[in-house]
Formats: sequence, structure tokens, C-alpha cells
Amino acid sequence: MTVVKSTIPESARQVTGDALQGTLVDLLGLSLIGKQAHWNIVGPRFRSIHLQLDELVSAARSFADTVAERSAALGIPADGRPETIASAFTLPGPKDGWVRDSDVVGLMVEALEAAIAKLRERIAATEEADPVTQDLLISITADLEKQRWMFDAENWPRDN
Amino acid sequence: MTVVKSTIPESARQVTGDALQGTLVDLLGLSLIGKQAHWNIVGPRFRSIHLQLDELVSAARSFADTVAERSAALGIPADGRPETIASAFTLPGPKDGWVRDSDVVGLMVEALEAAIAKLRERIAATEEADPVTQDLLISITADLEKQRWMFDAENWPRDN
Amino acid sequence: MTVVKSTIPESARQVTGDALQGTLVDLLGLSLIGKQAHWNIVGPRFRSIHLQLDELVSAARSFADTVAERSAALGIPADGRPETIASAFTLPGPKDGWVRDSDVVGLMVEALEAAIAKLRERIAATEEADPVTQDLLISITADLEKQRWMFDAENWPRDN
Amino acid sequence: MTVVKSTIPESARQVTGDALQGTLVDLLGLSLIGKQAHWNIVGPRFRSIHLQLDELVSAARSFADTVAERSAALGIPADGRPETIASAFTLPGPKDGWVRDSDVVGLMVEALEAAIAKLRERIAATEEADPVTQDLLISITADLEKQRWMFDAENWPRDN
Amino acid sequence: MTVVKSTIPESARQVTGDALQGTLVDLLGLSLIGKQAHWNIVGPRFRSIHLQLDELVSAARSFADTVAERSAALGIPADGRPETIASAFTLPGPKDGWVRDSDVVGLMVEALEAAIAKLRERIAATEEADPVTQDLLISITADLEKQRWMFDAENWPRDN
Amino acid sequence: MTVVKSTIPESARQVTGDALQGTLVDLLGLSLIGKQAHWNIVGPRFRSIHLQLDELVSAARSFADTVAERSAALGIPADGRPETIASAFTLPGPKDGWVRDSDVVGLMVEALEAAIAKLRERIAATEEADPVTQDLLISITADLEKQRWMFDAENWPRDN
Amino acid sequence: MTVVKSTIPESARQVTGDALQGTLVDLLGLSLIGKQAHWNIVGPRFRSIHLQLDELVSAARSFADTVAERSAALGIPADGRPETIASAFTLPGPKDGWVRDSDVVGLMVEALEAAIAKLRERIAATEEADPVTQDLLISITADLEKQRWMFDAENWPRDN
Amino acid sequence: MTVVKSTIPESARQVTGDALQGTLVDLLGLSLIGKQAHWNIVGPRFRSIHLQLDELVSAARSFADTVAERSAALGIPADGRPETIASAFTLPGPKDGWVRDSDVVGLMVEALEAAIAKLRERIAATEEADPVTQDLLISITADLEKQRWMFDAENWPRDN
Amino acid sequence: MTVVKSTIPESARQVTGDALQGTLVDLLGLSLIGKQAHWNIVGPRFRSIHLQLDELVSAARSFADTVAERSAALGIPADGRPETIASAFTLPGPKDGWVRDSDVVGLMVEALEAAIAKLRERIAATEEADPVTQDLLISITADLEKQRWMFDAENWPRDN
Amino acid sequence: MTVVKSTIPESARQVTGDALQGTLVDLLGLSLIGKQAHWNIVGPRFRSIHLQLDELVSAARSFADTVAERSAALGIPADGRPETIASAFTLPGPKDGWVRDSDVVGLMVEALEAAIAKLRERIAATEEADPVTQDLLISITADLEKQRWMFDAENWPRDN
Amino acid sequence: MTVVKSTIPESARQVTGDALQGTLVDLLGLSLIGKQAHWNIVGPRFRSIHLQLDELVSAARSFADTVAERSAALGIPADGRPETIASAFTLPGPKDGWVRDSDVVGLMVEALEAAIAKLRERIAATEEADPVTQDLLISITADLEKQRWMFDAENWPRDN
Amino acid sequence: MTVVKSTIPESARQVTGDALQGTLVDLLGLSLIGKQAHWNIVGPRFRSIHLQLDELVSAARSFADTVAERSAALGIPADGRPETIASAFTLPGPKDGWVRDSDVVGLMVEALEAAIAKLRERIAATEEADPVTQDLLISITADLEKQRWMFDAENWPRDN
Repeated sequence: MTVVKSTIPESARQVTGDALQGTLVDLLGLSLIGKQAHWNIVGPRFRSIHLQLDELVSAARSFADTVAERSAALGIPADGRPETIASAFTLPGPKDGWVRDSDVVGLMVEALEAAIAKLRERIAATEEADPVTQDLLISITADLEKQRWMFDAENWPRDN
Repeated sequence: MTVVKSTIPESARQVTGDALQGTLVDLLGLSLIGKQAHWNIVGPRFRSIHLQLDELVSAARSFADTVAERSAALGIPADGRPETIASAFTLPGPKDGWVRDSDVVGLMVEALEAAIAKLRERIAATEEADPVTQDLLISITADLEKQRWMFDAENWPRDN
Repeated sequence: MTVVKSTIPESARQVTGDALQGTLVDLLGLSLIGKQAHWNIVGPRFRSIHLQLDELVSAARSFADTVAERSAALGIPADGRPETIASAFTLPGPKDGWVRDSDVVGLMVEALEAAIAKLRERIAATEEADPVTQDLLISITADLEKQRWMFDAENWPRDN
Repeated sequence: MTVVKSTIPESARQVTGDALQGTLVDLLGLSLIGKQAHWNIVGPRFRSIHLQLDELVSAARSFADTVAERSAALGIPADGRPETIASAFTLPGPKDGWVRDSDVVGLMVEALEAAIAKLRERIAATEEADPVTQDLLISITADLEKQRWMFDAENWPRDN
Repeated sequence: MTVVKSTIPESARQVTGDALQGTLVDLLGLSLIGKQAHWNIVGPRFRSIHLQLDELVSAARSFADTVAERSAALGIPADGRPETIASAFTLPGPKDGWVRDSDVVGLMVEALEAAIAKLRERIAATEEADPVTQDLLISITADLEKQRWMFDAENWPRDN
Repeated sequence: MTVVKSTIPESARQVTGDALQGTLVDLLGLSLIGKQAHWNIVGPRFRSIHLQLDELVSAARSFADTVAERSAALGIPADGRPETIASAFTLPGPKDGWVRDSDVVGLMVEALEAAIAKLRERIAATEEADPVTQDLLISITADLEKQRWMFDAENWPRDN
Repeated sequence: MTVVKSTIPESARQVTGDALQGTLVDLLGLSLIGKQAHWNIVGPRFRSIHLQLDELVSAARSFADTVAERSAALGIPADGRPETIASAFTLPGPKDGWVRDSDVVGLMVEALEAAIAKLRERIAATEEADPVTQDLLISITADLEKQRWMFDAENWPRDN
Repeated sequence: MTVVKSTIPESARQVTGDALQGTLVDLLGLSLIGKQAHWNIVGPRFRSIHLQLDELVSAARSFADTVAERSAALGIPADGRPETIASAFTLPGPKDGWVRDSDVVGLMVEALEAAIAKLRERIAATEEADPVTQDLLISITADLEKQRWMFDAENWPRDN
Repeated sequence: MTVVKSTIPESARQVTGDALQGTLVDLLGLSLIGKQAHWNIVGPRFRSIHLQLDELVSAARSFADTVAERSAALGIPADGRPETIASAFTLPGPKDGWVRDSDVVGLMVEALEAAIAKLRERIAATEEADPVTQDLLISITADLEKQRWMFDAENWPRDN
Repeated sequence: MTVVKSTIPESARQVTGDALQGTLVDLLGLSLIGKQAHWNIVGPRFRSIHLQLDELVSAARSFADTVAERSAALGIPADGRPETIASAFTLPGPKDGWVRDSDVVGLMVEALEAAIAKLRERIAATEEADPVTQDLLISITADLEKQRWMFDAENWPRDN
Repeated sequence: MTVVKSTIPESARQVTGDALQGTLVDLLGLSLIGKQAHWNIVGPRFRSIHLQLDELVSAARSFADTVAERSAALGIPADGRPETIASAFTLPGPKDGWVRDSDVVGLMVEALEAAIAKLRERIAATEEADPVTQDLLISITADLEKQRWMFDAENWPRDN
Repeated sequence: MTVVKSTIPESARQVTGDALQGTLVDLLGLSLIGKQAHWNIVGPRFRSIHLQLDELVSAARSFADTVAERSAALGIPADGRPETIASAFTLPGPKDGWVRDSDVVGLMVEALEAAIAKLRERIAATEEADPVTQDLLISITADLEKQRWMFDAENWPRDN
């Protein structure tokens, strides 16, 4: 017996559910590695990037909530448990221990680029299946691209 | 070379660091399973518990930040990466998929009881080592015990 | 003589105007039946659903305003007069008098599902005619689908 | 079986219930025709009256809520469904389509005068039956009379 | 020697003073038993009623302050000391210890009904003596009747 | 030709208009002498009474606005011009120059008592003519009586 | 015996005191005639000017307070009693009764121009005597000139 | 059967429960006698102490809530019913009727001193039993000692 | 060497960059001519349109910021320097000096219509190239179309 | 025919008008180049200076509005159109494209120094003509000098 | 090498720098003795003056910040170190230990008078050197004169 | 005669008073040297550290107030006069004149480390004497240790 009914057909539900679940894992992962860097960053740019990382974490948490509730709204339970994130999250993240400020900046550019590339694939994939979900993925992409630019602008000259 | 110096002696630093790292994992884990239940709960008490879980998640996130920054303040980098949480988190949590409201309530009582028991051990352990950290752990315990009571009061009569 | 000029061609204006007028009636109707249930609900879940209905009414009123002003912006006067709503509103609504809490939940799931189905048709219909209007209908759908899920999650087990 | 008990005797309940139900219909009707004019008004005073109408709508909605909850508090379910408003609302309202600004002002003066006349009758009728309800009707009258004055002051010279 | 002068004649002062003192005791008593239930309620509706009781307590405290200051304004010192409340408060209240949620709801309906009945007598008694005080008692009655309805709507079906 | 129409009959309009115009003059006068004392008070209680007077001025200004707009709402233009206040205001007020704190307190008690006595007459006079206006006068009386008590409580022992 | 000492020499005190007292009367007078017009204005621009007048009244009241407290700070008690304003206020003001909107605009331009002309003389007069007071008068002039422009811009074409 | 489980051992629960229940009675009693004095104080310091007492009442109410919920969190239902306070509250309080300002100050110093002495005993008693509760009692003591100082500083010279 | 990397392919970057740069110029230009009209407007509708123009300016500035940061996020530096706006801005704007209110309204309708027409072309152009940018342009169009309607509704009858 | 009358003599009006128009151009120009740098800055200090520039832009926009309205208040229409700024703005500004963080800092120091030098000349020039305008220019100078210091402090050691 | 450049000539810089440094020491000193009195005041006016002193401290701290940043803006580093204040601060201040309320009032009048006298000299001294700084000193004087009046009004009759 | 009574025994009062007075001097000293560095810092990290120092100053001022009021609450007048701070403050602080950003960071780490070391001794010293004071010192230590970490993290690599 179906617990929560979906408002879209079964095939569309499958594609959309995969896109949402993958995005959820990326966003929860970003929020965890963003906090990790927020706590362990060292170097002369400590305060500036410490604050910037909190804006990224805050956005990632808020988007994760919207994505998981969108999934539920389509009748698909979301999965954001610790073990799921640990096994499904594939973006680069910080090592254990203190991290130098310039390394944090480079790392966040890489992680965001990887997340954006996957989001752009999911935008294409959901166009037919569910324009409502596609619209949500577009908003997330816009915000993450803006955040990526800010870290990248800070990342120059690259050999710094 | 030490990156961030500690303000307490080495032996105290070891005990305190362990207490803080263990607490960080429990709090981050609670925030993840709290959200998981927030999204996937079903049943007539959906709305009431859906909201209550968000208060727990919000408290857990805020305490996790304070705990990790306390650790850094003592010269010990905190570890809240996905893989660390997945391997170190031992509290009970929800299965994948939809969960009935009364099961969520029972589960949160259990998870909070386990977290509190470990916190009370750490309160004892840090008394000598660092009264500042002990004071922080006492505040967290007070709040989690209040939240546990609220779920437990809702959990009655237990065979409901 | 044209009173307010349109910024889109005549044919597109017709399709878009129909979609907006139909949506306006559904939203104003939802706001009226939502308040009706808000006042007359009885049963042990009174307070929780009484509050939830006000969130639905508030969203419906705000969307109705945006929809009618979009219509005016396209040079089409909107029609939200009492007699128009009474004759054009076809979603299921509560009977006169007190209504039991579980019946209210079931009723809102039905009414929202009917409204969403019509919105999805209008999303398809306006894609060519006016992407700006389509974008607005997508936002409304996203919100009503989230609200439908919340009532549906509460609606379980269904024979309750 | 009585669902919600009343705190006043049966005869008083009848008189009071009629006064409240009549007032509810007038207020919900005013809120709908106020919005209709808000959307469709044209002319040089567009912005000024567009904003003024929203204040009227906001007051009417808020009073409607208080009136319906007062009715429920007396054990009488209120009726604000679309079909009820359409059949019971007798105040003058705008035609379909664009309306000139000076016509809107004249129309609102008329509609408010009619509503006030009926409210003054209900104030007299409820004095014995329920002073609490009378007090509420007095407040509504005070506010609608202030709003009527503002439209009437704007309505001068009348042949404008 | 009179400490604070009254602005109304002696006979009116007596009647009004009694009405205000009686109301003060009922409101302070309601605030205490409301908190008692807020702390000790158990059962599946814990959270919803726990919050609702705080709204009642907050209203009762605020009204008690207005009533006592109205009494002082008429030259009559109010009496809200613990021993006065304990001996003069006659509304039903909770027993010591945990109380089941449905019992709390029934109890609050009873206590509010008793308070309202006494207020309605005082409204009649003060009409001649002091319309300013009568107006205040009418406002309090309106609010308590609304709160009573909300508990009563929740109290159905009664054998729940 | 009538400029703004009244919603009550001519005879009632006369009585109500007189009551409102007299109240307006008293309130504007109170706001002016309250500020005069606020600026020129001296003595050890300066700060406490300086602040208390501003609360009185703020209330008097706000009530004056409501009273004048009620008058306009009944089709009677209000008159609050400097020359009108100077000739019609009969309450006691401060002399020119510095005023001792205890004298200010005594003066405000007297001025408020005089204003309240006139308001109580107007409450009686408007009962038949216009219950809406009567209700407004009752609210003003309640507030001025509270303020009078506060100054009177401070005025004790009187020979201080 | 001096009550409040001055921080500037006697001759400067005289000039400055006159400038402040004259300004106080003009500002209190403006606040009274501004309200008079606010209540009694009629015509198609009623609402727009009704609101604009309240901004003028609010500024005039706030400046009057600053001016009177500046006077007190220099050891000169200010005089803002009704009889003082009535005899010393010489700016043009509205007649009794309803006033047409275009007449209100013209009147406020005149009254503000007269006030500004007197302020500019006082700015010159206080330059030597007390630059602190001069600075305050400059701020008031800047604001009144801005308000005059807004009424004057509205006053065009003048024969309107 | 245990309704709400405790997270501390039985013996600790007993000691802690007694400390919390005794503190609850003192705080609720303080809030009632604080309000009593707030309403009935007379004398030249009326306004200053009237406001100060409200800060004490507000703190006492907020601490009472925290204390009672801490008790519930330990599985011990709190008892704050009128009859319990009346019989268990032993701090000095005001007589019936008006009270002179200097007497109020002296009385509050005495009442707070008595409350603080009992709190310091409970801080010692709970050190072993429950450091979480001890921490709460320490916070309450810190605040009441600050409030006591403020009344005591005002109480000087004592024969005033 | 690339300074800020793009997340979309080169060809798409070119089309999107052109659309964003053109939109930036139009929005910055609108903000400047909106302010110009805000300062220099004269006539009976001065205040109403003076305020309305500030809402347009505020929206234009905020959208300009979002558009320029979107451009940067795609690796394309935006160009909003004075000389660029002066040479690239082609929308109609006000002449130097005072402008009559009805002329301002007509002018803003024209300027907004021209801006909207260009935005609709850019919406079509970016559909393939970058749906994230397209989504942003759709939001801007929706808002400018609403603002255009408001000026146009005010522009009737046109020969006014 | 004069549209808006001036409150100062013709000769003073000329000098003051020139000072205000020159300042308006500098402030609007600063707001545009400040935003240009805000968008296009790159380098390790990106975030810190990106935020600092927005404070400068916000101040410049707000001062520009005050300056233009002061000009209008003196009967002189201000000119802030794109072509006027482009031809009259002579301060140094960024080139097209990305700009390194240290170059942005140096550039803003230069631009602010040039603006301040011109403001100091205008302060001298307006002393006789209009002290109200002089006072406004002094405030603007104070703020720009503070902002210049902040960029200059950041600009050290200069060869960085 | 100059670290931060000045925008005024060397001679003006010297005069202005001395005026600012002297003012900084007085303001920091006032903030410290204001707090000292805030903590140690005793007597029946404790609460009223305790609060008033905090307003003085808050103003002094805020002005000190503005003065020091103005100094930096002129290229002159400010000096507010403990040893500098201790040696350069010459205003009268409280002795160690408790201070009676009336003594505090007299002391603050004296300290403020001394500070104002020195500020008036600095206003004269900076007129030529830097009108921006003069303007700042004028604002500070205006505020301190207002605060001095308030303490002085409270200081009467002086032998109290 | 004792002015303000203590609530703890004489011996405990001595130890606690010394701990509080020493802490007060350190906190007031930190607030002064923090501001000194806030004003005089130069270098590329100016803005970031300028803001960070204000957070330290704000915390130090707030803790100083709590510490001094705690002392008063124990019957011990606090001493925060300029000469006391100058003679008793022993933490390292900035020289006169401009200070390079990296030197400021190093200096604050040193000053905070010295303050923390003394606080940890006082935490031990007050454990027996007054657990309420100990709790306050623990909170202050927690915050200063967090601030020290933030400066230390920024201080790396140390030879920077």
C-alpha cells in the first residue's frame, strides 16, 4: 500500500526521485565539510573564510531541507542518514586536522564545481519528468555557482 | 610545530579532547537522524512531531558548533566529516523509508537517553581536566534532558 | 479602446488569461474553504490542524493576489467576485456545520490534489504562450504539492 | 448531541448567531469586492486607491476571522463557503472588468454605508442577548465608519 | 486618610471593587493551574496542549495585571497574595502529579466555564456602577470564551 | 451642501459632536502641558517623572487623533487650532518657568481628575446618541484613570 | 538663585534663548495646524496629502522637543503652553471646518515659507552666540525646506 | 508503572527533586508578592520601584518555568498549585492594602535574602546528586543576588 | 590565463554573457532615470509617483546586482561603468529640468516596454545556453511587467 | 515662470546649485565604480573588500539622494542622467574586466581623495551662500574621509 | 614615510589632532567614571540614576569611537591606552567605594561642566583648521550639555 | 556600618572580592587596548581585524559590567577608575601610533593568554568560596579562550 501518494506518473517519479536523492546527499555532504573547514582553518585569512564558509553551510542546509521535502511531496522518502551520506558522497573534502586557508579555498572551488556539474545533469534529466523539481534544481545551481565564483575570485592568483 | 596552542596542560587536553570529539559525533548524528525523521514521518501526529524534531535538530547543530569551536580553542582540531560520523556514531536511528509517528517518538527517546548517558560520563571525566568544558557539557545535557522528557511525555501510555 | 496594453501577442494572451483566471478562482475558493474548516473543525487534533489551515489560507490569498496582478499586467482584468467564485469553483469543500478533524484532513488532500492536477495542465498550456506566467504557476504548484504532502502524511493510516 | 457547548441561553444564542452570520457574510464579501477593485482600478489616482483598498481588505479579513471564531465560541458553526457568500451578500459591488478610480471611490462609500447600516441594527439587537458580541460589533462599526469617511472625503466634490 | 482617591462614588466603588477582586483571584488561579498542567501533562497530544496552555497562562497573567491596576486606579488596593488565592480560588484544577492529555482538556473546559459564568454575573453587576470596568470584563470574557471553545472543540468526541 | 455625510441622525450628531470636540480640546491641552512639565521639571525625581510625562503626552496625542477622526467620520470637522485650544482649554496647568517635581505630580493629578470628570459626563451623554463614540470615550477614561492613579500614588504622603 | 546653570555667557544666552523660544512656538503651531488639516481635508487627493501631513506633524513634534530641551540645557525654561502658542504663533493656518485639498497644499507652502524665513534669521543671529544652537536650527531648516519643496512641487501648475 | 523515566539514579533523584520543588515554591511565591507590591506601592519613588518589581516578577516566572521543567525532565512532576504555594511558601511578604515605597524596598531585601540562603543550601545539596541541577540553581542565585543588591543599595541610609 | 573559470561551455558562455551585459546596462540606466524623475517631478500627483519611482529604482538596483554577479559566476566580468551605460543605454529617459507628473508616467511606460521587449528576446536566446540565467531573466521580466502595468493603469485616459 | 520657488536669493542659489550638482555627479559616479569593483575584484582579499565596497556604494547612493533633494528644495532641478554622469565625472575608476584586490584598494583611495578635495572647496564656497547646504557637504566629507582612511590603512605597506 | 595620509594641511592637522586627542581622553575618562558610579551608587534614587549613568556611558563610548576614527581619518593615530587616560584625564571623579546618590549627581554635573568648557574651546580652535572636526565637536557638546542639564535639574534644591 | 550586606561569609567574601577586582581590571584594560588597536591598525588585513577587535571589546565591556555588579552584589564596591586600571593592569598592549596588522594579531594572542592564565587561577580559588562567582569566571574564560583561538588561528604560520 502506498503511504504518501505522488502527483506525477511512476516513470517521472523514478527520474525525479534519483535527482533529488543525489542532490540531497551532495548538499548534506557540503554542509558537513563546510563546517569541518570552518572549524579547522588556519592562516591570515582565517576570519574572512571562516565567516564565508558559514554562509555556504547555511545555504546547503536550507536547500537540503527543501530538496528532501520535495521528495516527500512526490511520495518518495528521502535518505539523509549518516551511513548513506558516508557511502554516497563523492565530492572532495578536507583531511583530518588543521587546514591552511588557501587550501580551504581551493578545496571549496573543487567541491562546488563537482556539485554543480552533477546538478546541471539533473536539470536536463528532470525537464520532462517534473518541471517543478527542475525549477528547484535551477535555483540551487544559481546559488552554488555564485558561491563557487566567490571562492574562485579569492583563489587568484592560483599559485598563491 | 604546534599550530594552535592549548591553554591547558597536555594530560587534561587529552581527556577533554576525547570528551568533545565524542560529543561532536553524537550531536551531528542526532541532527542528521532528526532531519531524517522530520522528512519521513507519517501518521496523525505528523505536524506536531515534524515541528518538534526541527527544534531538536536546531539545538543539536548549534551545540555541535560550540563543541567543535571549544575543541579548536584547546588546540585540538575537531572531526565532523561524513566518514567519521558514519563510523563513530552509535546511537539508534530510523530505518530508510517512511516511519510511523509513534515509532519516531520511541526512537528519539532511546537516542536521547543514550546520548545523555554518555554525556553524564563525560561530565564526570572533565571535572578535573577542564571545568570550562565541563560547564559546556552540563548545558548540553540540561537541554537534551528537557527534549527527552518532552518526547517521553508524548510516549505515554507506552503501548499506544 | 484598449485600457491597459498587453506585452504579449493576442493569441498568447487568451491562453494565459484563461490559465490565470482559472487559477484565481481555485485559490480564492481554497482560501474560503480553508477558513471554513479552520473555524468549524472539532476533535482531538483541533489545534494542530486549525493552525495548519491558516498557513494554507495565507498562501492561497497571497498567490491569488500575485495571479490577479499578473493578469492585469497582461491587460486582462481578473474576476474574483463572490458570484464568479461560487459558479466557477469546482473543488470539493466542507459541508455546513462542525467537521471532524480526520474528515478535514481527507478533504484538504482531495481539494489540493484537484487543484494541482489543474495547475499541471496550465503549466503545460502556458509554456509557449508566456514563460513568465508558467514560472509563476510552477511556484504555486510546488507550494501546494508540499502542503498536500503534509496533509497526506497526516492522513495515514487512511482508515483512521 | 451538542458538539461545542454555548455559554449563553438558547434564545440569546439565536439572535447573536444571526447577527454574527450576517456580519461574516458582509465582511467576506467586502474583502472579495475590495480585492476585485484593487486589481481592476484604472485612472490617475490608481496607486493611492490601490493601496487604500488593501487596508480595507486586510481589516475585513481580520474582522471576519474574529466574528467567525466568536460564533464558534458560542457553539454556532459559522458559514463562509463560496456558495453562501454568493447567495447572501447583498452589498453593491463592482462590475466585471476595468473600473475608473472615481467610480471605485463612490462604490466603496455605498458598500460601506450599507454594511454600517446593517451593523447598527445588529448592535441594537445584541445589546440584551450578548454584550460581548455587541462590543465586537461596535469595534467593527467604528473602523468601517472611519474607512467610509476616508473614501467619502475623497469623493468630493461629488460630480468629480 | 484616603491614600489613593477614587474617581467614582463610594457605592459604585464597592460593587466594582468586589467584581475586580473576584476576577483577579480567578485569573491568578487560572495562571497557576494552567502552568501546573503545562508541566505535568502526558500523552500523545503533549506538545500541542503544552503550547496551548502557555497561551492561556500568558493571557491570564496579562489580564490579571490590568484588573489589579484598574482596581488601584479606583482607589482600591488589589489582593493577589498566595494565601488569598489559595482561600478564595474555587475553580476546579489538576491533582498533584502527572495528568493525561485528555483529562487536561476536560479540566480546562470546566475551569474556564466556571470562570466565564462568574464573569457574566460581574458584567451585569458593574453596568451601572462603572461602565469602564464593565468594558474591561467584557474583553476578558470574550477572550476566555474563545479559549474555552478551542479546548471544547478538542474535547470531542467527549468519551475520547 | 453636506461635505461628508453622517451615518447617524442629526440630533445624535449634535450631542456626539459636542462630546468629541470637548474631549479633543482636553487631550490636546493635556499633551501641551504635559510636554511643558516634561521640559521644565526640577528636583530629585526629575528623571522618573520626566519619562512618565512622555507616556502621558504620547497617549494624549494618540487619543486626540482617534477622537478627531471619529468626529470626521460622523461628518463633523474637528477643531484643534491653537486659538481654539487656548480659549476652550480649562484644565489647570503649570506656570511659566521651572517647576518643582512634587508640584508637577500634584498638578497632573488635578488636571487628570478634571479631565476624567468631564469624560464621565460625556460617557453618559453619548449612550443613546452613539454607542460607538461612547465606547471610544470609555477607553480613553480607562487609560487616563490609570495614569491619574500612578501620579496619585506618587503624590503620597501628600504633604511631601 | 539660578535653578539650572548655563554653559554659555549671559549675553549669548539671551540671543539664543529668543531664537529657541521663537522656533518652539512655530514648531508647536505647525504641528497643530498640520493635524487640523490632516483631519479636515477633502477632495480627490485626500489620502495622499492626509499621509504627507502626518510626516510633517511628526517632524515638527520631534524638533519641538529637541529645541525645548536645548533651551533647558542652556538654563532657559521653554514655554509651550496653549496660551503662549495662541498669542505668539503668527504663521498662516487653516480656517475652521472642511478644507479643499488644493487649498491645504497652498497653505502649507505659505506656512512653511514663513517658518523658514524666520529660521534663516535665527541661524544668522546665533552664529556668534552659540554654534551648537545654530547647528540645530540648520538641521531643522534643511528638513522644513525639503518638506516645503514637496508641497510646492505638488502645487503646480498653481492655478490647478 | 513509571510515567516519565529519570536519567539519574533514584537516590540522586530524591535530593534533586526536593531542591527543585522547594525552589519552585519560592519563585512562584516571589512572583506573586512582587506583583502585589507592584500594584499597591505608594510614595514618591512609586514609578521607579513599580518598574523594578516587574523585572523581578518576570525573572521569577521565567526561572519557575525552567525549574519545573527540569523537575519533569528528571521524572518528577512539579507542584505549583495555589494551595501548595500558600502552605509551603515561608518568605516574608506585604500585608494587604497600600504599602509605602520604603517599606516595599525593605521587604524585598528580606524576602530575597531568605530565598538566597535556601538556594545556597540547595546548591551544596545537589553538587553530588546532579551537577546539571546545581548549575541551574547557581544561575538563579546569581540573578537573585543581583536583584537583592539593587534593592539593598536603594535601602540606604536604612533609617530613611 | 583564465581568471575566474566558467561552469558552462564557451559557446553558451558567449550568448549568456551578452544577454546579461545588455540587461545590466538597461537596469542601471533605469535606476538612474528613475531617480532623475523621482527628484524632478512636479504636479498634483507628485507624492504618489515620487514614492512609486523609488520602488522601481530599488528593484532595478537589486536586479542589477544579481545580474552582474551571475555574469561573474560564469567567468565574465560585468561592465557597469558610467561611460559604458552612457554609450550602451538606449531606452527613452527624461529631459533635463522639471518634468510634469503625467509626462513621467508616460515616459516610464515607454522605457519599461522597451526594456521588457529586449528581455523577452534574451529569455528566448538563453533557453538553450543556460536555463539558470533564463530563470533569472524571467523573474526580472515578471517584476518589470508588473511595474509597467501600474504605470500604465495610471496612464488612463491617455490624453489626461 | 518659476516651477518650484527658492527660499534663498538668486546669487546664493547659483553658487549652491553648482556645488550640489557637482557633488551629485561625484557621488553617483562613485556608486557606479564602487559596484564595478565590487563585482570584478579578484585576489585573496576578495570577500573583505567586496563587502567594504558595498558600504561605500550604499553611502554614496544615500548621500546622492539627499543632495539632489536639497537641490530641488532650492528650486534647482538636479541632473543625474547617464549622459551627464559620463561627461561630468572626472574621478579615476577601474578599467573594464577583472581587477586585482590591491589595485582596487589603491584606486578607491585615489578616487576618494579627489572627491574629498572637491568637497572641501565646495564647503568654503557655500559658507556665505547657504549654511544649510554647507552643513550637508560637511557631513558627506566626514563620511568619505572615514572611508578613505579605511582603504588607506589597508593600502599599507604601499608596495604590497 | 607617512602611513596614513591626511586630507588637510600640516598646520591644520596639528590643531585638529590636539583637539581630538584631548576630547578622546575626556570621553574615555567619562565612560570609566560613569561606570564606576553606576556600580557603586547607593541611596533611594539608586535605580533612576543607575540607569541614567548607563546612557551617559553609552554616549561617551560611542563619541570616543567617532573621535578616534576621525583622528585616524586625518592621519593621526589616536591614543586611548590605560596609562594615557590615567595621566591626561583631569575631570573630577568618584572616590573608591560606595557613593551616595546625591553626591553622584553633583559629581556628574561638575565633570560634565568641565568637559563642556574644554569642548567649547576646541570648537573655537578648530573652526579654521577643520570645519568637519568642528562639526563633530559641536554634536558632542550638544549631547553633553543635554546630559548636564538632566543631572543639574535633578540636583535641585542644591542643598538636598 | 555596612552599606550593602553580603550573602556569603566574610572569609569567602575576601577571596571572591580579590578574584572579581582582578578580573575587572583585566577586562577593562582589554577593552581599552582592543579599541586602541581597532583604531590604529594598518595593513592588508585591516578591515577583517578591525571588525574582530570590536567583538572582543564588546565582550570585554559586557563581562566587566557583570563582574563589577557581581562584586557589588556581594557587598564589595568595584574599582574601575582610570588610575586603578593604569596601575593594576599588567597585560601586554600596543605601543602608541600605527600598528601593523600581523603585530596586532600576535599582541592579542599574548594579552588573551595572560588574561586566561589568571582567570584559571581564580576559577580554582573561588571553587570553595563562591560557586556562583566561579560559574561566572568559567563563562568568561570560555569566551576569551574562543577569541584567543581565533586570533591564534590567524597567527599562522607564525613568521608571517
